[in-house]
Amino acid sequence: MNRNSRLIPGFQAVRESLLREEMAIQEIWITQGKKGPRVTEIVHIAERRHIPVRFKRASEVSRVLPDNIHQGFIALVEGFHYADLDQIVERALKVQGNGLLIAVDHITDEGNLGALIRTAAFFGSHGMVIPKDRSAGVTARVLKSAAGAHNYLPVAKVVNLGMTLKFLDKKGFWIIGTSVDEDVLSLYEFDWKRDVVLVLGNEQKGVSPSIRRLCHQVIGIPVTGQVESLNVSVAGGVILSEIKRQRAN
Amino acid sequence: MNRNSRLIPGFQAVRESLLREEMAIQEIWITQGKKGPRVTEIVHIAERRHIPVRFKRASEVSRVLPDNIHQGFIALVEGFHYADLDQIVERALKVQGNGLLIAVDHITDEGNLGALIRTAAFFGSHGMVIPKDRSAGVTARVLKSAAGAHNYLPVAKVVNLGMTLKFLDKKGFWIIGTSVDEDVLSLYEFDWKRDVVLVLGNEQKGVSPSIRRLCHQVIGIPVTGQVESLNVSVAGGVILSEIKRQRAN
Repeated sequence: MNRNSRLIPGFQAVRESLLREEMAIQEIWITQGKKGPRVTEIVHIAERRHIPVRFKRASEVSRVLPDNIHQGFIALVEGFHYADLDQIVERALKVQGNGLLIAVDHITDEGNLGALIRTAAFFGSHGMVIPKDRSAGVTARVLKSAAGAHNYLPVAKVVNLGMTLKFLDKKGFWIIGTSVDEDVLSLYEFDWKRDVVLVLGNEQKGVSPSIRRLCHQVIGIPVTGQVESLNVSVAGGVILSEIKRQRAN
Repeated sequence: MNRNSRLIPGFQAVRESLLREEMAIQEIWITQGKKGPRVTEIVHIAERRHIPVRFKRASEVSRVLPDNIHQGFIALVEGFHYADLDQIVERALKVQGNGLLIAVDHITDEGNLGALIRTAAFFGSHGMVIPKDRSAGVTARVLKSAAGAHNYLPVAKVVNLGMTLKFLDKKGFWIIGTSVDEDVLSLYEFDWKRDVVLVLGNEQKGVSPSIRRLCHQVIGIPVTGQVESLNVSVAGGVILSEIKRQRAN
């Protein structure tokens, strides 16, 4: 339990939390000696989500939650809070001309999303935008793969990625899509010294056509070997590195 | 079963294969109806290595292996063959001045090694050297993570990485180590237009001191955010991308 963790007490709250895939639950505590169908149900759902269940002594539980409001059931939740889009925009535009946001489209693999958060944070991106649908949320698995980097990268969840990109366009950002097609501009040839939203798609389908139409420019990483695509966090790292290199010069 | 797969028939051969961690076994076949301690033993070892066991009809098995030499036991092995070091060196020196080898030190995570193979192949590296000890071998999990890229990147396994680097030094390669220390040269400031062996270590410990002493230069990726390190395949991608960019100019 780290200082960012939150405790969610009570059978219903724990059950609800377990049923919401986007909740980053670290573990479930049940007080020792507790029995019955409620215990069975919680253990069952937790198992399905690969969340460990610990049976704790009542004295241990009361040390962190003095009142008995927990009914013997507590969920330990990673304290991840989504950021507001406005907050991210403001952060990026503080360094006008060097703003750097990441938007993800269709990245459903939690390990990949987490690795991308780590990579984006390493290169000092100002924030990430993930769509509510067609993307992984910031789950426990994402946080595990992000290896703590989520503490340094505000992530906003938006209902409509297209609308959000239009909004960011109006705010002065260049919307830059990525593609594995061979006829797109090389990332090394693009001038990154401007406020940018880098849109990364998934490895199979790339950025969806409706999103691609909103991009001011589509760039790619030139293929030099016989392998055609990179893992999305590696591709992200390669592009972010080039952005940082150009901006430092 | 793809065209690169090999079948290893017979109880002892299957057992031996299962006990060699470096063997990339896709699955085990046992003919239906077979019983006894041999079946129990094979199933037990396979389970421990997380390799699926399929019970196949005798007619199905005889279609791919007509003789009964298999005794009812077959291992389906991913056809990965390690390359010779000499072969890799020759390949790299064909493009003298642009040779590019990767050596890994202490990368024990199979997912990371596989992702690195994919990344190295994408950027057209000429080969990879992995030490026999203190490193993951090319296992089934590595191959899964490499996503087919191992077919384009020769990988040599060497007994002593230090000796190998000394050998490559004599062959004219620059041995370039990597580090997360802040006082090392930035990768963007190094001139990569020469034959290079890039030595990547693991994320926690980096390249070991004995290997670091053999390096002509140690470079790093400048930290711009508050996160101090990258996943090793992302770091590899960032460095390889910069090498390719410089060499194209």
